[in-house]
Amino acid sequence: MNIKNYLKSKKDEIDKYLESIMPSENKYPSEFHKAMNYTLFAGGKRIRPILCIAAYSIFKKDYKKCFSYAAALEIIHTYSLIHDDLPAMDNDTVRRGKPSNHIVFGEAKAILAADALLTFAFETMSGVSNIKPKIVQKAIHNISKASGYSGIVGGQFVDIDKEGKNEDVDIPTLEYIHTHKTGELLKASVTTGAILADATNKEYKHINNFGKWLGLTFQIIDDILDEIGDENKLGKKIGQDSINNKFTYPAIYGIKKSKEIAKKYTQKSISFLEKIDKDTSILENISNFLLKRTY
Amino acid sequence: MNIKNYLKSKKDEIDKYLESIMPSENKYPSEFHKAMNYTLFAGGKRIRPILCIAAYSIFKKDYKKCFSYAAALEIIHTYSLIHDDLPAMDNDTVRRGKPSNHIVFGEAKAILAADALLTFAFETMSGVSNIKPKIVQKAIHNISKASGYSGIVGGQFVDIDKEGKNEDVDIPTLEYIHTHKTGELLKASVTTGAILADATNKEYKHINNFGKWLGLTFQIIDDILDEIGDENKLGKKIGQDSINNKFTYPAIYGIKKSKEIAKKYTQKSISFLEKIDKDTSILENISNFLLKRTY
Repeated sequence: MNIKNYLKSKKDEIDKYLESIMPSENKYPSEFHKAMNYTLFAGGKRIRPILCIAAYSIFKKDYKKCFSYAAALEIIHTYSLIHDDLPAMDNDTVRRGKPSNHIVFGEAKAILAADALLTFAFETMSGVSNIKPKIVQKAIHNISKASGYSGIVGGQFVDIDKEGKNEDVDIPTLEYIHTHKTGELLKASVTTGAILADATNKEYKHINNFGKWLGLTFQIIDDILDEIGDENKLGKKIGQDSINNKFTYPAIYGIKKSKEIAKKYTQKSISFLEKIDKDTSILENISNFLLKRTY
Repeated sequence: MNIKNYLKSKKDEIDKYLESIMPSENKYPSEFHKAMNYTLFAGGKRIRPILCIAAYSIFKKDYKKCFSYAAALEIIHTYSLIHDDLPAMDNDTVRRGKPSNHIVFGEAKAILAADALLTFAFETMSGVSNIKPKIVQKAIHNISKASGYSGIVGGQFVDIDKEGKNEDVDIPTLEYIHTHKTGELLKASVTTGAILADATNKEYKHINNFGKWLGLTFQIIDDILDEIGDENKLGKKIGQDSINNKFTYPAIYGIKKSKEIAKKYTQKSISFLEKIDKDTSILENISNFLLKRTY
């Protein structure tokens, strides 16, 4: 299957599913539900849900069974974007090509809309009836760890702590920020797919290693695009990392070397897929696609 | 058992348990873990954990089995306090008798510390191994609903939306704010106890109704204490609701009538306990204690 078609068709399915589960804007308090839905439906590649579905599909065919978790991953990602964009944090005014949530709804309501999204992800994951409770518990634990103090939030904390301090960028801190802020949830996207499909421990480990290197690559490309990307394609302002004095791969290695590292990491990620005795071509194609992405 | 002794001994047990599960401040990033622990251990009555334990104890003896959930309820409550206190929200500078989280750590880090607490609550709840997964799933679902868009966050959104608008306080809006912002999580504290103890559907319903009226009473007393309470005992500034033009019971009914309503609701809450054919005296005593509380 052509990878672009795959990404497009899965994105459409996820978008439809998200629309079906989010709180209705016709219900009180309408503005609250609008604020929750605004950034979620402002665009987005839906990479995390697609990774979850693609990983699940290696082991099982009925991929719609993991939609609640695929959706939860996107909802958690969106909550983190809304909080990251706040004036007290990165103070970004454009997200997914539109004014940031706090620009449209104000700071207080943006904070609350994101809080509600985070909680709704757990409500969605725990609300399923077509997955064994033992697997539900494991998947929720996996995603909560990746989203919390030892995942997204930990990475964002160190990122915020370091920026603008004019400290020298050191590699361990850079890697801490990258693996936690972006890497953990991308890794959790594929490992959750494996958990839901009841993969063996061995298979889970390979998927986990795949996700680890994929996550690192993803963030390196993000950093590169923030320097040389196309604002229209990205849907956000570029050059912000440099303005905010952020710890990034280009800042420490330059663009050329960063690209080489990303390529090496992509190959490394794929090497773990090759250890799985099943058809892993979709994940492999996604990995290569993400390396070359321009948005 | 003397109710004050019960509250004190259970509070101590919960505090110890919380200390045992929270991220160590000796581990990197130390300041992050400090910010997470700061407001959690700044004081607090631990009412939600105690309600969970007391409800569980009606049905089963091994109450320590529900500590992860009791702790999660307190952690979620603390996250909501940190976000409520932010400059963009209620702009409160004192909490639990100490400077608010954002005063000590700054706005960005306070937002993230609270985000991490919310996520950690779900990590804790899904990390248990001594409770049946089916019950785990049900309990997580119960708490996530109470904490999210149709619970705490929904109530806070309408609260923030209405304040300072100089609109007339209307009773349906007042009740929406109260039942959602405070009521849902207090109700969830007792219903989670019932879920974990595998209570029957009938028993669950009575506990649910008990929690509903208890939650309303709790918020009415909160409103009253904000007008006539003792700042030292409360650990926060009083008169803030009036300054912020908040929708409160005293604002609509006056202090005397509000006290009468709280008393009536307490009796109503207890009437549901009486329908349960077990010893419910501890919850009954807590309900009466909360009506008369001065902090």
